[in-house]
Amino acid sequence: MQIRYSLTELVSLFEGASVAGHTDSPVTGIATLKTAQAGDLSFLGNKKYKSDVLNCSASVILLPNDYVGEPKENQAFIRVSNSSLALAEVCRNVQKTLWPALSQPSIHATAVIHPTAVVHPTCTIGAFTVIEEGAVISANTVIATSVHIGRHVQIGEHCSFMPKVTIMDYCVLGNRIIIQPGVVIGADGFGYEMVNGAYLKLPQVGNVIIEDDVEIGANSTIDRARFGSTRIGKGTKIDNLVQIAHNCTVGAHCIVVAQVGVSGSTTLEDYVVLGGQAGLAGHLTIGKGSQVGAQSGINCDLAPKSYVRGTPAYPFVQAQKVEILSRRLPELFKRVSSIEDSLKHTHNESSTIIKDQDVSL
Amino acid sequence: MQIRYSLTELVSLFEGASVAGHTDSPVTGIATLKTAQAGDLSFLGNKKYKSDVLNCSASVILLPNDYVGEPKENQAFIRVSNSSLALAEVCRNVQKTLWPALSQPSIHATAVIHPTAVVHPTCTIGAFTVIEEGAVISANTVIATSVHIGRHVQIGEHCSFMPKVTIMDYCVLGNRIIIQPGVVIGADGFGYEMVNGAYLKLPQVGNVIIEDDVEIGANSTIDRARFGSTRIGKGTKIDNLVQIAHNCTVGAHCIVVAQVGVSGSTTLEDYVVLGGQAGLAGHLTIGKGSQVGAQSGINCDLAPKSYVRGTPAYPFVQAQKVEILSRRLPELFKRVSSIEDSLKHTHNESSTIIKDQDVSL
Amino acid sequence: MQIRYSLTELVSLFEGASVAGHTDSPVTGIATLKTAQAGDLSFLGNKKYKSDVLNCSASVILLPNDYVGEPKENQAFIRVSNSSLALAEVCRNVQKTLWPALSQPSIHATAVIHPTAVVHPTCTIGAFTVIEEGAVISANTVIATSVHIGRHVQIGEHCSFMPKVTIMDYCVLGNRIIIQPGVVIGADGFGYEMVNGAYLKLPQVGNVIIEDDVEIGANSTIDRARFGSTRIGKGTKIDNLVQIAHNCTVGAHCIVVAQVGVSGSTTLEDYVVLGGQAGLAGHLTIGKGSQVGAQSGINCDLAPKSYVRGTPAYPFVQAQKVEILSRRLPELFKRVSSIEDSLKHTHNESSTIIKDQDVSL
Repeated sequence: MQIRYSLTELVSLFEGASVAGHTDSPVTGIATLKTAQAGDLSFLGNKKYKSDVLNCSASVILLPNDYVGEPKENQAFIRVSNSSLALAEVCRNVQKTLWPALSQPSIHATAVIHPTAVVHPTCTIGAFTVIEEGAVISANTVIATSVHIGRHVQIGEHCSFMPKVTIMDYCVLGNRIIIQPGVVIGADGFGYEMVNGAYLKLPQVGNVIIEDDVEIGANSTIDRARFGSTRIGKGTKIDNLVQIAHNCTVGAHCIVVAQVGVSGSTTLEDYVVLGGQAGLAGHLTIGKGSQVGAQSGINCDLAPKSYVRGTPAYPFVQAQKVEILSRRLPELFKRVSSIEDSLKHTHNESSTIIKDQDVSL
Repeated sequence: MQIRYSLTELVSLFEGASVAGHTDSPVTGIATLKTAQAGDLSFLGNKKYKSDVLNCSASVILLPNDYVGEPKENQAFIRVSNSSLALAEVCRNVQKTLWPALSQPSIHATAVIHPTAVVHPTCTIGAFTVIEEGAVISANTVIATSVHIGRHVQIGEHCSFMPKVTIMDYCVLGNRIIIQPGVVIGADGFGYEMVNGAYLKLPQVGNVIIEDDVEIGANSTIDRARFGSTRIGKGTKIDNLVQIAHNCTVGAHCIVVAQVGVSGSTTLEDYVVLGGQAGLAGHLTIGKGSQVGAQSGINCDLAPKSYVRGTPAYPFVQAQKVEILSRRLPELFKRVSSIEDSLKHTHNESSTIIKDQDVSL
Repeated sequence: MQIRYSLTELVSLFEGASVAGHTDSPVTGIATLKTAQAGDLSFLGNKKYKSDVLNCSASVILLPNDYVGEPKENQAFIRVSNSSLALAEVCRNVQKTLWPALSQPSIHATAVIHPTAVVHPTCTIGAFTVIEEGAVISANTVIATSVHIGRHVQIGEHCSFMPKVTIMDYCVLGNRIIIQPGVVIGADGFGYEMVNGAYLKLPQVGNVIIEDDVEIGANSTIDRARFGSTRIGKGTKIDNLVQIAHNCTVGAHCIVVAQVGVSGSTTLEDYVVLGGQAGLAGHLTIGKGSQVGAQSGINCDLAPKSYVRGTPAYPFVQAQKVEILSRRLPELFKRVSSIEDSLKHTHNESSTIIKDQDVSL
């Protein structure tokens, strides 16, 4: 994965950057402040790592405009307004080298596309991909190898589906959606009714609707609705191995970290953040902008801007206090025992006093 | 996903239904009581939502026979013995429209079927599916695209395998089994022995046996046994992203909710329910009819009909009490400190009293 | 899955074994001590099950050399230095019967291999597998059906990839690596930056490097680095449905049990063991030889040889003590209330005494 940038080439990627120092070494790698060597580009993305800049051997370091300090010999500082976004700009540039644009769209000879499916001529379709009856794929969408697009699925423009994605029948996806490998969208919801000692499957005839600019991580699963739609809102980003159950409504611009599970019919309002491995019960509403700590278990509605953790979850600060006090339980039990001992003693003493008094009176 | 039912057509789907009110609107959608609009069918499946019926705008509402109340203008009530099952009946009917029966079974031209494999002529096999040496697929089973059926696998009748299912060699599956996309059955169990500082793989030569009427959710994994069989009992339903380790025995009619993990050689007896994200240690027996709360961690055997939660789990009511009291730890610590203060004070006072007495006597 | 060994054949598999008793029954199955019947081979792998040997009906039992006792009639004991490894030896032998060696390597006619990819002539490539531009597959590697090998991926010798594995572009894998079905290596890391109320994707231009002798379980996901590499060290074994995020460094000989999630940029040093469903925050270092209990949540660095559990995790013995005391919270609350009552009473009494004294004096 060879990259090679001169200092001048790098600087040209950022508007309004200022340069201090100089290096003749071309940049041939990207690394963190702690691991960077000569020839690497590094960056200060989080101020808490500021002191790492001093010992950093990178040839070039991206820094926020307000960083105070001088580069070492044969080292250049590039100051920008947002060094994390500047690094992203470099990576976007690297991306173009690693994945050069296809010369032209193409449908692989092995793809199986139903005659009633409509694939826009600007689409790219990989080997062994299947597009079923009535599906519609819009302009500039790129679909990798071994993807399954079910019957009557609709997919918008400029989407990117990685290998082995499965979109089941009747699901509807917007534009600029990125789906990582192995994702399953539109499998049956998990619904049964016990009849005579056995579970009867409730047919799941709804679908999944995914709005524009959503990204879904590898091997995650989003179930189709029992009826109506399971819905993922615009701009929401879902990590790997996440489970979104049937009839959930996920708002816009939510972040759902890896291995989260959301049970059926639960609603996330916009800008909700769910930490990794959190679990949500069904039929809940999580208010706008709420944040749920990793591994938390949510069993009740949350007001907007809630900040909770624990199982069952409660407000973050309170949860933290309880966690700390929990660890002092051995001490607390001892203190209570000691009080009890002392009281027994006092009581005896006190009895003695009374007795003495009885005698004395 | 267009549906269209007249009131008369709907009523004809249920035996012994009684109708109150009337609507001329055809039913063109299904929605919950809270979200339904004119033109929708809705239903009261759980009595706790009874009051939602009053404000519901659905054109037709399915209700239990004992529901007391009158429909609004241009609204019809259909009373049935079980409104949830009645809705399922409608959905089953919708399903027939959405997924019309194939005119005839077929094996896709791209499927790769080993000459020694036996595929019943009533089976349907999708594109890019592979059926290996010695596999047997029985009557009326439908296998979707890009499915892998390993060597000497046996599959019963009327099964339905969704895209990208993998069944590894020598596994045996019964009848009417539904497997959602991306499921892996029969991957190697996770077994190693440390030898000279490195882990030596223990060969996993057992298989997986799945009994009739089981359903397995998207991207779940069920490992083959080290020897003998990992077994899933009749009628058990497993949700998405569940892990069942090698040599587990899952009884009949169990419910295993999403993201549960069951460690090796653990036995679930019949009718066990495991809540989402629960984790079970290995070599345990979970007694018949036990219920395990979501996210619980089980590290010991459970007697039949246990009802537990927490990590490590303990009886539900006790766990709930402890959870509530945990939150009062800040208060408890204060109360104990206050007692200690008061005792110190009392002790001083008490000493004073004694001293006074000494003087006075 | 038929096996058949005479006692003599079995004994010949182990060096330095000693036999007691005799059986004429051929061994046709392998089973645990509790479930074995006549015709089965069983074994005592863990001394805590020693008493099960007495009632075991197996025809042949593998035992450690120091086991004291005599076989029943028509039963043979085979004593060996390590009975678990001896059983593994039998299983390895069974494996040869179940999966006979291919007569010769082959590339399936349906595989799509880019003209610039280099596949060693000793490799076996399954149906519907795709090998992209510039990929290199070394000697004796076996790749099953519907596997995706991305652009410029490098794979070592003697690897075994099961069906539906996805290796994304530029990843580098060593020798003797086993990858179970559905694994995704090199999907994009989960990185975004909020810009004007929407999440901007940070390009992920690093890769994944997997060292020799690693095994990865079904449907697990290992994300590519934002830049640089996500790395899995030599001999590490990863179970099913595990998530390893971008830029993690996993040391050598680690054990990562099913459904664990490791957040971005976290380092596991060598010989770390993570119990099932454990979750680790990002940017942590877990010291060499540390063990993390199942379902634990780790939010800080751990010193080498730490042994922790809980969420947030703390030392095992302390955590266990706190868990036990937590369950006694109802009792503790009662004890504190009782102390408070008694103090109120004492105080009244004490006041009374003082009053009496006042009077008496």
